[in-house]
Amino acid sequence: MESLPLVEMRPIGVVLTDVPDADIAHRRRDLVSIIQVLPALTPALVGLEEYSHLIVLFWMARTPPLMQLRQRPRRGQIGEEKGALALRTRNRPNPIGLAVVELLAREENLLRVRRLDAYNGTAVLDIKPYDHYDVVVDPKVPAWSNSAPRA
Amino acid sequence: MESLPLVEMRPIGVVLTDVPDADIAHRRRDLVSIIQVLPALTPALVGLEEYSHLIVLFWMARTPPLMQLRQRPRRGQIGEEKGALALRTRNRPNPIGLAVVELLAREENLLRVRRLDAYNGTAVLDIKPYDHYDVVVDPKVPAWSNSAPRA
Repeated sequence: MESLPLVEMRPIGVVLTDVPDADIAHRRRDLVSIIQVLPALTPALVGLEEYSHLIVLFWMARTPPLMQLRQRPRRGQIGEEKGALALRTRNRPNPIGLAVVELLAREENLLRVRRLDAYNGTAVLDIKPYDHYDVVVDPKVPAWSNSAPRA
Repeated sequence: MESLPLVEMRPIGVVLTDVPDADIAHRRRDLVSIIQVLPALTPALVGLEEYSHLIVLFWMARTPPLMQLRQRPRRGQIGEEKGALALRTRNRPNPIGLAVVELLAREENLLRVRRLDAYNGTAVLDIKPYDHYDVVVDPKVPAWSNSAPRA
């Protein structure tokens, strides 16, 4: 298994926002961004606007290389160390970002979305419509995740 | 934007299942598979077992190159053509698979999961704990998606 080949992919678009990197995380809930998909891929977006929500996968290129496989949740303030793959931290083996966003509008190759916590200029790798089978009713989550249901 | 650099990543593990490729899709709901994470990454999994569900991202290497940006949903049987990015088809610009799975057990670097619709030997790119903010209550989905809420 140590010889798993590298995976290479070509971004399909880019995130556009005026919000500075440092403000993205704490403003995420109300953040409205544009995803500019490559014009050549516009036909691949037909019908996407019939969904209310999307799953956006993006490449967090500005994340420093992973140095620690374990870290304390919530920036080291509480609790014992958890694995990078047991957290939703940016600092993970492959820094793929995943956001469940609200699709506000599509205009040709431009998607206007709410709640995409990606920095300006971030490369988008895939966009998937959010469907019923993505919903888990009452998932079990540890207390240290400190999350709350979506507003 | 045409000059977005290629993204390269190293798989973090591999999917193990006895089920033949041809049976994966229609058996997905009851499918139990093993994700074998690279032993060196075992510390990154600590705490994952405190979650009931995971989001698994994997590389669908056996998907043929994307030829058509639009296709008819449900294998061409019904309706008008929709974009590859408006469908959950394997046939998309970057064939990243995404599955919301139930975590049945973790034993060191082995994760036993239910409902992972990935073929035997598939490279896993990322594993994220499924959290409250991934739940969309009553998402809008077009009739042609033909999906039903999770059982």
